[in-house]
Formats: sequence, C-alpha cells, structure tokens
Amino acid sequence: MGKYCIGVDVGGTSIKMGLFTTEGELLEKWEIPTRKENNGSGIIQDVADSIREKMKEKNMDKSDLAGIGMGVPGPTMADGHVIKCVNLGWSECDPAEELGQLLGVSVKIGNDANVAALGEKWKGGGKGHDDVVMLTLGTGVGGGVILGGRMVAGKRGVGGELGHITVNPKETEFCNCGNRGCLEQYASATGVVRVAKKLMEESTEETSLSKLSEITAKDVFDLAKAGDLVAEQAVEVLGEYLGLVIANVTLTVDPDVYVIGGGVSKAGEILIRVIEKYYQKYLCITSARARIVLAELGNEAGIYGAAKLALQE
Amino acid sequence: MGKYCIGVDVGGTSIKMGLFTTEGELLEKWEIPTRKENNGSGIIQDVADSIREKMKEKNMDKSDLAGIGMGVPGPTMADGHVIKCVNLGWSECDPAEELGQLLGVSVKIGNDANVAALGEKWKGGGKGHDDVVMLTLGTGVGGGVILGGRMVAGKRGVGGELGHITVNPKETEFCNCGNRGCLEQYASATGVVRVAKKLMEESTEETSLSKLSEITAKDVFDLAKAGDLVAEQAVEVLGEYLGLVIANVTLTVDPDVYVIGGGVSKAGEILIRVIEKYYQKYLCITSARARIVLAELGNEAGIYGAAKLALQE
Repeated sequence: MGKYCIGVDVGGTSIKMGLFTTEGELLEKWEIPTRKENNGSGIIQDVADSIREKMKEKNMDKSDLAGIGMGVPGPTMADGHVIKCVNLGWSECDPAEELGQLLGVSVKIGNDANVAALGEKWKGGGKGHDDVVMLTLGTGVGGGVILGGRMVAGKRGVGGELGHITVNPKETEFCNCGNRGCLEQYASATGVVRVAKKLMEESTEETSLSKLSEITAKDVFDLAKAGDLVAEQAVEVLGEYLGLVIANVTLTVDPDVYVIGGGVSKAGEILIRVIEKYYQKYLCITSARARIVLAELGNEAGIYGAAKLALQE
Repeated sequence: MGKYCIGVDVGGTSIKMGLFTTEGELLEKWEIPTRKENNGSGIIQDVADSIREKMKEKNMDKSDLAGIGMGVPGPTMADGHVIKCVNLGWSECDPAEELGQLLGVSVKIGNDANVAALGEKWKGGGKGHDDVVMLTLGTGVGGGVILGGRMVAGKRGVGGELGHITVNPKETEFCNCGNRGCLEQYASATGVVRVAKKLMEESTEETSLSKLSEITAKDVFDLAKAGDLVAEQAVEVLGEYLGLVIANVTLTVDPDVYVIGGGVSKAGEILIRVIEKYYQKYLCITSARARIVLAELGNEAGIYGAAKLALQE
C-alpha cells in the first residue's frame, strides 16, 4: 500500500487539496477554483487533472497513493452517492466513483462538515479521542459526529446536521431550510448578528453596536468582551442554544469531546465559557460532562479529514 | 462455542431471565423477585443461583452457554463498571464481573433501555436494520441508540438517555433529574397525565377527563380517540415533543427506524400518527424520513437485547 494519501475539500468557491503521509503529515497543500458552470460538471475532471499534475511534479505513481478522500458540501449516502449539492449545481451523481475511474485510485467521499470533524478528530482539537462531535460556526452552522473513529453519515446523509436542530419552536423567522428555530439562526456568524440587531431594536440599553454601519459577528464578540450589554445578551443567546444542543447530543451519543470551529470560534475562550454555562444547565442527569475545545486546524480540517477518510476501510 | 445464551433484565421489582438459542429463539423465560435489602448486595448472587438451577434442570453445562447478557436500570460504562443504580441501591460496582466469576461464564452488561433497544433491533420492530433508535414511554421515558448493530453507551453512560433531552426550556416544573422541560415531563405515562391535568385547569372546554377520579395515560388516549378536545390536546403535546426529539436525533445520527415501546405505546396508531406529524414539521432539510414503528417485544425486549449483547464481541 502507498505511503501517501490525498485529501480534497470541494467548496463553492475553491477546491482545497492536500498531500499527506499516511501518518497524517501534511506535505503540501494547494487549491484550484471551483468551476460551477454546467451544473459543476467539470469539477471532478479539474480535481483529477490537478492531482495528476501534482503527482507528476512529485514524481509519484498511483501505487504511491493509499487513496484519496473527498469532502463535498451536501449530504452523501453510505454508498458514496450524492443526491444534491446546491452550492455546486450537482444532483444525482457519484463523484467518488467518477474521480476513482479517472485516476485509477480508490476514492472515499463524505459530507464536508462530517469530514472536517474527522480531521479535527485525527489531528486537531479531538486528537486522541474516538468519539468526537464538531460544530462549525460559519455563515451557517455545520456539524459532524464521529463515533468509534468513524463518521456517522446516516441513512439519509443528514447525520451530524446539527445546525438544523430545532432549539426554539416559538421562533417566527424562517431558517434557509424552511424550519423555524434552527440552531443556525442563533449560533452562526449571521445568526449572532441577526440576534444582536433584534436585541438592539427591543432594548432600551445604549449599545456601541448602534454606532456601526455594518455589524459582524466579530463586532458582537469584541463588544461583549468590552462589557456592552446588548452584545453580551446576543452572545448569551448563542451560548444558550449551543449549550442546549450539546447537552442534548450528549444525551444521544455521549462523546468524549466537542470541538468548536468556524469563523465564530475565533472569539476564543469567551465562547467556550458561555457554551459551558448552558451545557451544565441543561445536562442534569450526570455531573460528568464532555470537554468543549476550540478547533485547531482552521480551514485545513477538511483536507485532513478527507485524507483520513481515504485511509479508512 | 455454546449454542445457547441467557438474557437477564434486572428491574426494581423483579429480574426477568430468558434462555435463548444463539439464533435468538426464546426457549424459556422465568423471573425472580429483586431483593433490594442491603443496597441490593444479594441481587447478583440470586441471579447466579437461579441460572445455575435452570441449567441443572435443563441438564446444561457452562460449555453449552455462549454467554450471558444483563441489562441494569442505570448508566453503565464501557468497561462494564456501574456508578449508580438508584432503584437497586447499587453504587460503584461491577456486576458483570461478579456474575461472571460466580458462574465461570462471560457476562456483558448494559443500561436496560439501551439493551431493550438492542432487543427490538434484533427480533422486534427494528429487525433487519442496523441503525435503530428506541423510545420507551413508561413511567419515565427511556431511550436507546443502536448504530451499526451495537449500543451507543457513551463515555459517561448517558448515550440514549433521550427522556432527559430538553424540549421546553421555558418549563417551570422540575423533572426528577433536576432539569426543567425534559421530554419525560410530557411524553411518559405520568407526563401525559400531568399535561392533561394542566390543560383541564386552563381550558374552558368540557372534558370527560373531569369525570374520572384518577386519570391514567390510557384514559387520555382513549378519550382523545373518542374526540375529547382536552385529551386530544394532551396527545398533541406528547406528539409534538416526541416528533421534535426524533427530528433532532435524526439530525444527529440519522437511523433507519425509530421504535416506540413502553406502556404508552399500547395506544397504537394514534401515537405513531401524531409523532409523525411533528417529525415532519421539524425535519425540513430532507423529505426522506425514518420510519416510526411500534415495539413488538413488549417487556421481553430486555431479555432479548441482553441475550444479543451476550453474543457480541
């Protein structure tokens, strides 16, 4: 078996790739733009061309590769089948099979958030643990559940879709998914800003948020750290719903550790503290709680996880 | 390896036992009372004596047994260790090790609700599926998560404790666990009665519930079937919170099927229909939903699951 593997993270704007040793050392990373024309029908060919070129540059043969793993922005079925990737224009396809045929190498596939969780489990915040749940707080909220070292993709490919867990059935605004009261509506970068703006309207408190022409998630956290009451409230809402979901996921699969990633996680310790406060509030049947840690791999989690996936039976 | 196995289901009042073939045919079942004196210190000895007696009666030797499995009413750790079983008086013990030493046979252990889920997966409502989640609606609400054919016990033994998932953070009454707003407060036999009584107080509707000196969960369902509006509302509340939890568990581990058991499940199809209504409401990111079915093994689920557990590596 080859001593190297390749991780591919297909995003809506760019495709990240990484060449790894099978021990998980990242030797080189590169990226190419995502060609979304014609329903993204050229994407897999582009990935194949780019990998071939890199192998040529490195004087590598396909026998040097233990495999290729790929994360894609949509649900993937157990057999590798993809039903829909809205961001890429894909529907009803089998990109792993396609890439495997083009390169003559075994290719594994998974949902990008699940794959990122596998990366953090392998070499990031979840390192050394078998059961890891990741929440990625970006524009939306992604999630990934790793049990016994393996991704839980689920029968309909929605395993780990923690961003769409309903945390507030009384919410009146809709989430993109059509539901009302999803975690994502409060705990994503856009969610915390949405909540902050609503609180500004309702609150009689003065807030420095009102001096900003455009509010970002970073502004909300920075002002919360500085003691701005309205910003603090928005952070509490985010922490309460994340803590609630983490408590409820604990009562379902009870993992070793929760890893918090994505742009919002740059807020750092304030985020962990507010989540822990509510995790403790909502988990009463045991006083032993899982650790909640920050992600460590940043936006390389996807290529790490994809490389690890390539190595799994 | 032996052609038989024994499943033991330790409850607060009685201990059920079953002798099975390794294919899962129940050959004989029997039970003994649970001796709770002296913090339940005689329970394992009683089980050992009863099994020895049965084996003698059947002319069986320990080499005829592939193993023994045991479900206990409390969290069990991956190593078999039990921290606390309040109903039995146990704390900090290793009952599987103890029973194994007494009988010279390998003994596996699990939480009773997880073990019942494994039983329904093996020979009941979840038969033929690998990923099964069970909810047992009894005095409380028990839960069990089976993935890849195996129980998810969790790192703190609280995997599958779905009855304590918070479904209503605004609840003012406390659950036994110390939290407020647990599923159990609405969807157990006692929960649906509690909700019905509250609705009776608040409602201006006439209800036949007010003619009863004592209300049971069966009364609530029977009257709901007969069109009593207040009883119907209580069933809706139960269905809404069960549907919410099932949607959220789907977004976490996305199993093949949900099995609903326990005394409340005797209500039958009305229960499945009201759960499905809210499952659909709260699961928007996919139109493919898991099936929700009634349990089939009744209170034998525990001995079936324990027998299956005995056979797993």
